[in-house]
Amino acid sequence: MRTRLTDAFDLTHPIVCAPMAFAASGRLAAAVTHAGGLGLIGGGYGNPEWLEAAFADAGNTRVGCGFITWKMAENQAVLDQVLARNPAALCLSFGDPAPFARRISEVGIPLICQVQTLRDAQHAAHCGAQVIVAQGSEAGGHGERRGTITLVPEVADWLAGQAPDVLLLAAGGIADGRGLAAALMLGADGVLIGSRLWASAEAQVSEAMTDAALAATGDETIRSTVMDAARDINWPTRYTARVLRNAVTDRWHHNPDQLRTDMAARADWAEGWASGDPVRANTFVGEATGLIHDRPPVAQIIDRIAHEAETLLKRAPDWTG
Amino acid sequence: MRTRLTDAFDLTHPIVCAPMAFAASGRLAAAVTHAGGLGLIGGGYGNPEWLEAAFADAGNTRVGCGFITWKMAENQAVLDQVLARNPAALCLSFGDPAPFARRISEVGIPLICQVQTLRDAQHAAHCGAQVIVAQGSEAGGHGERRGTITLVPEVADWLAGQAPDVLLLAAGGIADGRGLAAALMLGADGVLIGSRLWASAEAQVSEAMTDAALAATGDETIRSTVMDAARDINWPTRYTARVLRNAVTDRWHHNPDQLRTDMAARADWAEGWASGDPVRANTFVGEATGLIHDRPPVAQIIDRIAHEAETLLKRAPDWTG
Repeated sequence: MRTRLTDAFDLTHPIVCAPMAFAASGRLAAAVTHAGGLGLIGGGYGNPEWLEAAFADAGNTRVGCGFITWKMAENQAVLDQVLARNPAALCLSFGDPAPFARRISEVGIPLICQVQTLRDAQHAAHCGAQVIVAQGSEAGGHGERRGTITLVPEVADWLAGQAPDVLLLAAGGIADGRGLAAALMLGADGVLIGSRLWASAEAQVSEAMTDAALAATGDETIRSTVMDAARDINWPTRYTARVLRNAVTDRWHHNPDQLRTDMAARADWAEGWASGDPVRANTFVGEATGLIHDRPPVAQIIDRIAHEAETLLKRAPDWTG
Repeated sequence: MRTRLTDAFDLTHPIVCAPMAFAASGRLAAAVTHAGGLGLIGGGYGNPEWLEAAFADAGNTRVGCGFITWKMAENQAVLDQVLARNPAALCLSFGDPAPFARRISEVGIPLICQVQTLRDAQHAAHCGAQVIVAQGSEAGGHGERRGTITLVPEVADWLAGQAPDVLLLAAGGIADGRGLAAALMLGADGVLIGSRLWASAEAQVSEAMTDAALAATGDETIRSTVMDAARDINWPTRYTARVLRNAVTDRWHHNPDQLRTDMAARADWAEGWASGDPVRANTFVGEATGLIHDRPPVAQIIDRIAHEAETLLKRAPDWTG
């Protein structure tokens, strides 16, 4: 397949792996790059040792890295640590990229900004992002309220008028070739995929959480702040995280502040999280979980998506009668 | 364009007009049918006089009608009233279609069920719906939480296995040819369009509310229960309605129960609603408002959507390199 994204990053497929905190290991990122996409290590909350190990695991494979912007801002040394690795791209999500954009561009690393609103897309373009990821509410993990199917074309229209050289990726709810083909129709140059690659042989995810996601339909996820309360992480209030609904969300979704002060409940959650337990902790996955039924190697996932999208795109003229 | 929907309903374009309460007048529905789609009168809360006038306005043009199911269940005479008009289709949204499916099929009218979850899609198919509309959270007016981009392919997969003859429409966030083309890629046989047709010369919507929507980006809508509290309508709690954010939602979004008992505030809202005031009442429109910049006649809207979709579909093979 060929789009502006594959041209710009020399990819076989217009597919980027979401830099999922914890799950997007060096092994996962490298596997996506080897399969013809672009892998991004999940820099997440910015643990220097984890990052060092992740880059070591990726070896000489060309991968990028993503950060949770507001968290990285509290410990900017990890940004320098990653830039020193000469990543294929640096992705910033959830927070203001302005304080970091120049430092990233000065060392010649492409800046990818993931955004959840038109307003933030405009700001990211003004900051000099080369790639904007328009992330819809369907996405797993942290995000906001807008849906992929309106956010992508609205950002595309604005970019076409104001910053036509900026590339656009669609994220949120895309797990197969249908989603990739739809994203291209909506005006994207490619897709950023989370959940589908989260449920892969190479992702750093427990078998029990993966199994819980494979068994769930897309009806069974929820956007909540429960898991941030359980970890006592002070996420900016505009963001919530999509997870599988379970006893934890049933119990605490409407009173997360109480959970924050309940040390026993928090300890239980932490134990569940450490052991990868989808009952005592939360499984971070998107609505696309209903489209995911297995946990194959990344190469097979990427091949499947690309093949399905190509088949749809080749047959598309048939609909025009 | 040609899909299973255009074949089944003898349409030129795979486009159905959402049966928007109040806005989808007989004039709007007839205009959509004349333009090559299928118009549905917005039976809404089931006012017999309004319905009579709407069908009179549609004249001999072939149109269908939609109801808010849980409300129609309280006054089933309006169903018989509409069935006696021999509508092109009967659309049920928001509630259990089971008690009405047989009555509708016995008189040979196609049943369209709009659903918001996979579970409800399965139920609708079991009830004998000929067409299922998978409505994402992006939609204006009442709806639920799932996004269009995951709900459509998930329902498509289930129908393919269990009820392959049932047609599938995508709804929620579709306002142009990009959205239509994307919906086909996701596995839909066509689209149900609300907001884009709501902002048309033929829709029964005040100029001030239309102008407010034309000026808004997709970031400026919210799903809320404020407008149901203001009207003291007891919608089932699973549903919320998407409207433009304004001073009313800012004031009452987090305490709608208080609004329900504030008779002065409710009277103010009712006056605002009666005069079509987007400041004192609420403008029911979807996230696609950010893709809508004018209020042309329906014929022009449908032509534009169809032409844009056809162009995209014809060029789609280019992406396969």
